[in-house]
Amino acid sequence: MESLEQSKQKALSKLNKSFGTSEAIFEGIIHQNKVALGKAITLAESKLSDHRALANDLIGKCLPLSGNSYRIGITGVPGVGKSTFINQYVQLLLAEGHRVAVLAVDPTSHHTGGSILGDKTRMEDIFAHPDVMIRPSPAGDTLGGVTAKTREAIILCEAAGYDRILIETVGVGQSETVVHSMTDIFVLLMLPGAGDELQGIKRGIMEMADILIINKSDAGNEDRAKMAKADYQRALHLFPPTESGWTPRVMTASSLEGIGIDTVHKAIEAYFLQTTSNGYLLHQRQLQRKEWFRSALEMQMSLLLFSNERLKQLYDTQVAEVMEGKTTPYAAAEAILKNLFH
Amino acid sequence: MESLEQSKQKALSKLNKSFGTSEAIFEGIIHQNKVALGKAITLAESKLSDHRALANDLIGKCLPLSGNSYRIGITGVPGVGKSTFINQYVQLLLAEGHRVAVLAVDPTSHHTGGSILGDKTRMEDIFAHPDVMIRPSPAGDTLGGVTAKTREAIILCEAAGYDRILIETVGVGQSETVVHSMTDIFVLLMLPGAGDELQGIKRGIMEMADILIINKSDAGNEDRAKMAKADYQRALHLFPPTESGWTPRVMTASSLEGIGIDTVHKAIEAYFLQTTSNGYLLHQRQLQRKEWFRSALEMQMSLLLFSNERLKQLYDTQVAEVMEGKTTPYAAAEAILKNLFH
Repeated sequence: MESLEQSKQKALSKLNKSFGTSEAIFEGIIHQNKVALGKAITLAESKLSDHRALANDLIGKCLPLSGNSYRIGITGVPGVGKSTFINQYVQLLLAEGHRVAVLAVDPTSHHTGGSILGDKTRMEDIFAHPDVMIRPSPAGDTLGGVTAKTREAIILCEAAGYDRILIETVGVGQSETVVHSMTDIFVLLMLPGAGDELQGIKRGIMEMADILIINKSDAGNEDRAKMAKADYQRALHLFPPTESGWTPRVMTASSLEGIGIDTVHKAIEAYFLQTTSNGYLLHQRQLQRKEWFRSALEMQMSLLLFSNERLKQLYDTQVAEVMEGKTTPYAAAEAILKNLFH
Repeated sequence: MESLEQSKQKALSKLNKSFGTSEAIFEGIIHQNKVALGKAITLAESKLSDHRALANDLIGKCLPLSGNSYRIGITGVPGVGKSTFINQYVQLLLAEGHRVAVLAVDPTSHHTGGSILGDKTRMEDIFAHPDVMIRPSPAGDTLGGVTAKTREAIILCEAAGYDRILIETVGVGQSETVVHSMTDIFVLLMLPGAGDELQGIKRGIMEMADILIINKSDAGNEDRAKMAKADYQRALHLFPPTESGWTPRVMTASSLEGIGIDTVHKAIEAYFLQTTSNGYLLHQRQLQRKEWFRSALEMQMSLLLFSNERLKQLYDTQVAEVMEGKTTPYAAAEAILKNLFH
């Protein structure tokens, strides 16, 4: 079986015939050509420096055209029904004339080449729709890498005229924090019956939620769902107020039966109405860009550091010694910087 | 009125007579001389490069002797009674033969020169005790600076034989996250009667708490305190489990009347027993050291960057352009690195 990297390279060379230059790809993107957009995202995901340069050029071109979407983070443990929910929610968005991109962040996916969004059957109603762009999680080695690529994909999709970007993640690792750092709203899906389903969710996630959906409130499950809703409402009431001024809402839904999705949809729209008018949305995005810059700077510094085998070894040694308490962080940092600049 | 910096310099030069060399200070520290310890912390807080070099040398010497304490983070909004609680709690610790250091983290304190721990009257029973070391928050310009200094103070205090380090912070800014990143346990003080008192606490703080104390459960207040306790217990039950394996506890206390402090004390000891035996404590401290190293590296890089007026201006310009969406974070980072290495 060919590796993920191999198959990507093959796909790229095949596309070179139609979109051979940065200009051609950019033209394709702004004319909402899905193949061009797909190629741009693939370039952004590539590790080859040629591709990287092309991608940087493209992102620079697309940046002025970006920002005109709702960036919606969606999380929940495996099995909570994220794909089914998205399948339903996106249909509502399409009916209103929106164009929707669905991206995934899954730092564990480099083992499998994308463990979420892999199941097309759960998104069968939207998968082939001309106004829907679905991309599985980029296969990255590090959370930082996956993050950077997803941020770039958002920019590219926005330039291609997608005005609703859903960013899906599994609620088990650090990926929710990452998704939170690149989205405007955070939607958390939970199972009815509080308790067991929390096992997979990291602490701190619940407090980030702007909308908490008790999913799988299916027939026969209504009572448990209602109780869970009341429980979470009480709990959220104990939380400090959000910076956005938005009061987090708890709602029940059955993605399978298509119940409650419209209420969620309306709540999301209400959130954007409120945070647009009170200035929070703009403010938040500026902070996110600043944070993105800081991590880009840090990443480029590390690249510089790790481009040299001797420096890389020095770094690893120093980290190990710091963790064992054998050297101070300052002495370790100085040792590295001294070598970096000589 | 002389500035804080001036008065510190004066204090240092006065001390030079008794502890003039790094060796003399180190000897003083390991012989539990409070004046020597105080001088070491002041050196660590100083911005003069001579002092910085001395401090680095001292911290390097003290590091192998550090780590033998319980590092206890204590937070809560102003007025919740942190100082009164600490005054009571420390007396219990002293009675058991412990030596206690009380440090403060308050990134807002550079306006006032230490807005918390300033009130000696609330700690009157312990302030002058030979086995207690109290240091107000270092006056730093940045959260990063204050953080670094507090971490160093912890190392120095541990080398001086303090086996209980309390780190107090106001629960209003980002300082709780910082305190969480340098302590083993996180104790959150709240007022009875859920709701209003949350206004000052940032979201995400509650989920970090290992022990949640409803303070001011004074006579006449018992019913509200009991209700608040039940509310928070229910809420905590909805939270995902902690990584430490510890189940967060909610308890009521009246620091003023000295009620419930012993229960808190026992819970804290139980926490350390559990996390020591399951390996979490060691693991957590290793991660904290790694994080400390990463921030030290970042800080030294920034120092390098900002030591040059031209580079500093370039950085500020790039940040502004990134925030406005005029340039990509990558292009901005590259522009800076290109200049840094030329």
